[in-house]
Amino acid sequence: MPRIVVDVMPKPEILDPQGKAIAGALPRLGLTGFAGVRQGKRFELEVAGEVTPELLEQARSAASTLLSNPVIEDVTRVEVIQEDAE
Amino acid sequence: MPRIVVDVMPKPEILDPQGKAIAGALPRLGLTGFAGVRQGKRFELEVAGEVTPELLEQARSAASTLLSNPVIEDVTRVEVIQEDAE
Repeated sequence: MPRIVVDVMPKPEILDPQGKAIAGALPRLGLTGFAGVRQGKRFELEVAGEVTPELLEQARSAASTLLSNPVIEDVTRVEVIQEDAE
Repeated sequence: MPRIVVDVMPKPEILDPQGKAIAGALPRLGLTGFAGVRQGKRFELEVAGEVTPELLEQARSAASTLLSNPVIEDVTRVEVIQEDAE
């Protein structure tokens, strides 16, 4: 079953407290190689059947309205993947 | 600045109430082409400098301990991306 992946990340200029908390926790685990962390969301929309251009347009519409808040977040990817790909 | 992307998704057999809520909301927006939705997390670990094999190993360690709960989540990707790629 093909899926459409939507990635949503906080805009670069927006404070990301979850990412900051993770960045603060990493050195306590001995993981000291990272300069910063941003946390976003990943959605997988399952498609029953063929991925048509209309369906991809629906996914883009969902990404920009339901799945992200355009004031604070960017949709960084809307892409079709096949089962077990990636 | 290179980044290491970590994708974390709920295991297929685990109920995903956020995904279910989104799947229920889509038809109310007129978006009827989807069979289901799963919501996961996406992390971007910023690397100051070169991505070494040790650093990638650190990222894998962070992914499986701090960034995901192995009981209910799978780490589906740990991958280096270059700035402005993807």
